[in-house]
Amino acid sequence: MSVLEEEILSQPEALEHLLRERAAAVVEVASAIRVADVDYALIAARGSSDNTARYAQYLWGSRNALPVALAAPSLFTTYGQPPSLSGSVVVAISQSGESPDLIAVVEEARRQGQPTVAITNEPASTLAGASEHVLDLAVGPERAVAATKTYTAQLLAVAMLSVSLAPDPGLERALAAVPEQVSAMLSGSVRIERLADAFRSADRCVVLGRGFNLATAFEWALKLQELCHVLAVPFSSADFAHGPVSLVDRDLPVFAVAPPGPFQQELGELMVRLRRELDARLLLIADPGATWAHEERVIPLPASVPEAVSPIVAIAGAQWFTYRLAVARGLDPDAPRGLRKVTRTW
Amino acid sequence: MSVLEEEILSQPEALEHLLRERAAAVVEVASAIRVADVDYALIAARGSSDNTARYAQYLWGSRNALPVALAAPSLFTTYGQPPSLSGSVVVAISQSGESPDLIAVVEEARRQGQPTVAITNEPASTLAGASEHVLDLAVGPERAVAATKTYTAQLLAVAMLSVSLAPDPGLERALAAVPEQVSAMLSGSVRIERLADAFRSADRCVVLGRGFNLATAFEWALKLQELCHVLAVPFSSADFAHGPVSLVDRDLPVFAVAPPGPFQQELGELMVRLRRELDARLLLIADPGATWAHEERVIPLPASVPEAVSPIVAIAGAQWFTYRLAVARGLDPDAPRGLRKVTRTW
Repeated sequence: MSVLEEEILSQPEALEHLLRERAAAVVEVASAIRVADVDYALIAARGSSDNTARYAQYLWGSRNALPVALAAPSLFTTYGQPPSLSGSVVVAISQSGESPDLIAVVEEARRQGQPTVAITNEPASTLAGASEHVLDLAVGPERAVAATKTYTAQLLAVAMLSVSLAPDPGLERALAAVPEQVSAMLSGSVRIERLADAFRSADRCVVLGRGFNLATAFEWALKLQELCHVLAVPFSSADFAHGPVSLVDRDLPVFAVAPPGPFQQELGELMVRLRRELDARLLLIADPGATWAHEERVIPLPASVPEAVSPIVAIAGAQWFTYRLAVARGLDPDAPRGLRKVTRTW
Repeated sequence: MSVLEEEILSQPEALEHLLRERAAAVVEVASAIRVADVDYALIAARGSSDNTARYAQYLWGSRNALPVALAAPSLFTTYGQPPSLSGSVVVAISQSGESPDLIAVVEEARRQGQPTVAITNEPASTLAGASEHVLDLAVGPERAVAATKTYTAQLLAVAMLSVSLAPDPGLERALAAVPEQVSAMLSGSVRIERLADAFRSADRCVVLGRGFNLATAFEWALKLQELCHVLAVPFSSADFAHGPVSLVDRDLPVFAVAPPGPFQQELGELMVRLRRELDARLLLIADPGATWAHEERVIPLPASVPEAVSPIVAIAGAQWFTYRLAVARGLDPDAPRGLRKVTRTW
């Protein structure tokens, strides 16, 4: 079993651990944010963690009335002209906690007297040391080069913070069910393997999402790029429909994350048209019971998952698909070409 | 002459007009922002205007200490759960001023008692009517489907606002020189046509930028998608080097915007390695005098353009290249497939 496979499959347990063991730590961090009484959250993140920030933008924006801005770290480093951070809580999200530019953002926030939070898997990291408050994900070391369990753990932590700031028994129950639902997503692995085989020869695709699952589209695309060397381009389906749709033909498969929710119908109609009018090859993460989905290739998402929680569950199916696609393409998921190269050369 | 060509070539005059005729209006809007004494700017935008927002993030962040957040309009519309906007000035950027979701963001800001600014080319639009302050670009109706002159005008307006908030004679002189420099970029059109011919058969590429010119990379990629049906994927060169670099081979050309500035050397080294180690086909918008650039294909950018202003000048070369590439590929730049379809079907 590859390290990546092991880590993907360990997610139900890791998330369960986070829910159970880190609840008190979440309450503490949430209360620090509440007390600070800020106008907005400035999130500093890179790569997969940037996609966690996209999720926070929708979840904290809609549930906690808290706007989310994404930091431009080079303003703090290369340009040396950081903006004023007054009114903000600075939240740095980093698996390793060793990214120098994120550390620079947190250090500047401390200098300016603003509250800082690190969400990390490494509580002994430089980032954690620099931050006033630390939320340790504690899901165990991530050994695979591509982030999987730390990504879902970050999303869950963002959701736990949201519930702690604005309690809601329904959402709390939904979070408690996440480990089991992730497990259910991964148990469909044979079906997903067949889907991966069907797309084995694709060297490019677009990945569509909207709202909460814009994050999922971006994270899926990143994994496809890193692990499968597929030129995967993420789009908001709204932006996509206003122009880039012209790119679609038989050689450009369209992947989409279309869970139950207010955008399901819009995405469904777009999919049906892409197939009928442009002969597009589609792959959906969706409720297989949706009327428009029954003719399509679907990685099934349980209809009972609320949209606000669906990114944590949906990405597990996308991770498994991507892992199997890498294998089907003869690639080693534990030694992705570019990610190695980065450390050595770039 | 196509409408698009006409509008690309009209930019020096349009920008000159904006500098001359709209200076007083800029001062008025800037003074309203100053008086409001806000913590951050929330920009609501879509498509090309979103790329203007990326530029504002770097310019206002570095020069005016003003952080920029990008709005997630669906929180205000589909989800009906807008965040609290206290501490913000809401700036909506829209060529037409008729995008319903941007109007919704501004209306919510008004309800919450926050200052609002519309930057638009249509002062009689619904968006302008809904906004407390309006900066009319007044560059004349944009008849081509793809935005060109309104994009550079938006960038220039963002820069004029920055100078008005924090005067700097050097930057003011640099802005005054923009029309002439855009004109110089466009006068290299024969050279650019040869470059377009060289990439005629490319159906995909990545477009790299960093800092101020991340906006240029995203805007160039959008134009390539819309006008040329090229699967163009924009990346921050920092993110690109940490993974997606693995995608590069002879069939995936790399376009990059690498003007003089603190990232020039980093980008230059990346380019040289991409060519030497991965045999990549490169196209740069850069100072042709840079030591690493002399072996590469270059759309020349005058070295005298300060980095903070370079996005306004650089994109003109990218627009011309993209226009010529569309023509070389036998496409009609005035009737791009996808953009038509949007209005009709999607």
